[in-house]
Amino acid sequence: MKLTILGCHSATPRFNAAPTAQVLEVRGHLFLIDCGEGTQMRLRACKVKFSRIKHIFISHLHGDHFFGLVGLIATFHLLGREAALNIYGPKGIKDAITLQLKLGKSWTNYPLQFHELESNQSVTLFEDEKLSVRTIPLKHRIYTNGFLFAEKVGLRKLDLEAVKKYRIDTSYFNKIKQGADLLLEDGSIIGNEELSLDPDPPKRYAYCSDTGYHPDMLPLIAGVDVLYHESTFLEQHLDLAENTGHSTAAQAAQIAAAAKADRLILGHYSGRYAELEDFRAEAAVYFPNTELATDGAIFEL
Amino acid sequence: MKLTILGCHSATPRFNAAPTAQVLEVRGHLFLIDCGEGTQMRLRACKVKFSRIKHIFISHLHGDHFFGLVGLIATFHLLGREAALNIYGPKGIKDAITLQLKLGKSWTNYPLQFHELESNQSVTLFEDEKLSVRTIPLKHRIYTNGFLFAEKVGLRKLDLEAVKKYRIDTSYFNKIKQGADLLLEDGSIIGNEELSLDPDPPKRYAYCSDTGYHPDMLPLIAGVDVLYHESTFLEQHLDLAENTGHSTAAQAAQIAAAAKADRLILGHYSGRYAELEDFRAEAAVYFPNTELATDGAIFEL
Repeated sequence: MKLTILGCHSATPRFNAAPTAQVLEVRGHLFLIDCGEGTQMRLRACKVKFSRIKHIFISHLHGDHFFGLVGLIATFHLLGREAALNIYGPKGIKDAITLQLKLGKSWTNYPLQFHELESNQSVTLFEDEKLSVRTIPLKHRIYTNGFLFAEKVGLRKLDLEAVKKYRIDTSYFNKIKQGADLLLEDGSIIGNEELSLDPDPPKRYAYCSDTGYHPDMLPLIAGVDVLYHESTFLEQHLDLAENTGHSTAAQAAQIAAAAKADRLILGHYSGRYAELEDFRAEAAVYFPNTELATDGAIFEL
Repeated sequence: MKLTILGCHSATPRFNAAPTAQVLEVRGHLFLIDCGEGTQMRLRACKVKFSRIKHIFISHLHGDHFFGLVGLIATFHLLGREAALNIYGPKGIKDAITLQLKLGKSWTNYPLQFHELESNQSVTLFEDEKLSVRTIPLKHRIYTNGFLFAEKVGLRKLDLEAVKKYRIDTSYFNKIKQGADLLLEDGSIIGNEELSLDPDPPKRYAYCSDTGYHPDMLPLIAGVDVLYHESTFLEQHLDLAENTGHSTAAQAAQIAAAAKADRLILGHYSGRYAELEDFRAEAAVYFPNTELATDGAIFEL
């Protein structure tokens, strides 16, 4: 998994502070998560081959997570896109986008498929043989979901020593990866455990923004490899966090610790703070393995 | 008049090519003309005091002129704006904006007043004692207006020599600027023409984007001091210009020449051209006093 932070700041886009958007590259997919104003420029600036994006997940319909979507959809049209584009987001997102396209008489030539969400339970949005994506219901001022990206257990890996030792033909490779034993010419059987190695453990990435402190999410994100959790405020502004449906860095870290996550990435900082390091320091008290998202940062998960 | 080009490129916003938006400062007003995606970041980058904007004019509802509007409106709200904001644009603009604000439960605290346009005749949008703004109906793929900003004749200017000579008290200044004569203590009358000078000639700025070649606009823009006219294409792509409702640089210059404008500013360049100077050169054949808009450029008119 490779996570590119296109933007990680809250509220108003500024000259050097892009609103929320990130790209997750996993098992051949390029997923876009949230799409604040200017995301298409950020995709270009970060040199993401964004024509490969086929699924866009929108957490909620506040502008700093959503106002860049219609422009990206229009740009795909102008660039001659043909592949279908799937948009997952709160109910109403289809009307908001299609009304604007209609007013501009700018219908897309490619299929634009909306998957509108309104459940307060976790639901599966996408699944193939390699991974699944499901919602993480969050607690914000308006209907909001986080997203859990979970790889499935992959194929076993060929033991190259065994391949050499038994002179295994390439035509058997896939069956062995799938767990098959090997029948030798003398009739003896070599068990799969002698031919292959355990697959890489599947990784899980949880994206949780925007949300107030919300332990209800813990069963869904228990043991995730990486948790991205918003931290709009520091504890000195806990009252603001509570009033606006946001979290402090300490609260984000408490969620990461309770979930027994491996890593925590903070983001969605309020513009009132000059020093992002304060977020990391506040969180590290509860969860030492805390990192800061910054615009343009790349995390290899 | 001072014109700041926030962006002047067509279609998709790119890393170093902002879509259309410009700010006209005239007689104490700060008018925003069009508002492509990212305009609020461009306002900050160009150090425009954008809280002073009270009137926004939207030519048409294609994304590269319009997709930044909702974000700017939301940002004004987050920054605590109280002053009313007037939006002038094609019918449908109110629904597009209000639907998005409604979905985010992000109603503005300040009055947001929409003035929706659907007339194919020129209509006056704004008028005070110093200037007027009216539409210039254009010819594009969808309903589109340009805008004519016309100063009114100002007050006469005090002749400082006369002030000294006749020891005129400051309490008379305004009346003299308005054309009054002066009654001296000895009963004699000094005519206003001896006390004041002619006012500066009123300036007019015409903004015409997007449009195909459209001589119908000539009566409205005859003799303007400055014409901003789109030139999406060069003559080598005249067929594209005609098919998409745009102009070539040569056509823009022909309009400027026929209108007997003083200056022509070109903009709305297609991204297919590497060298903007080609636009100026093509236009200069028909209208020598041609300049190129560039992102961030400031024109003192």
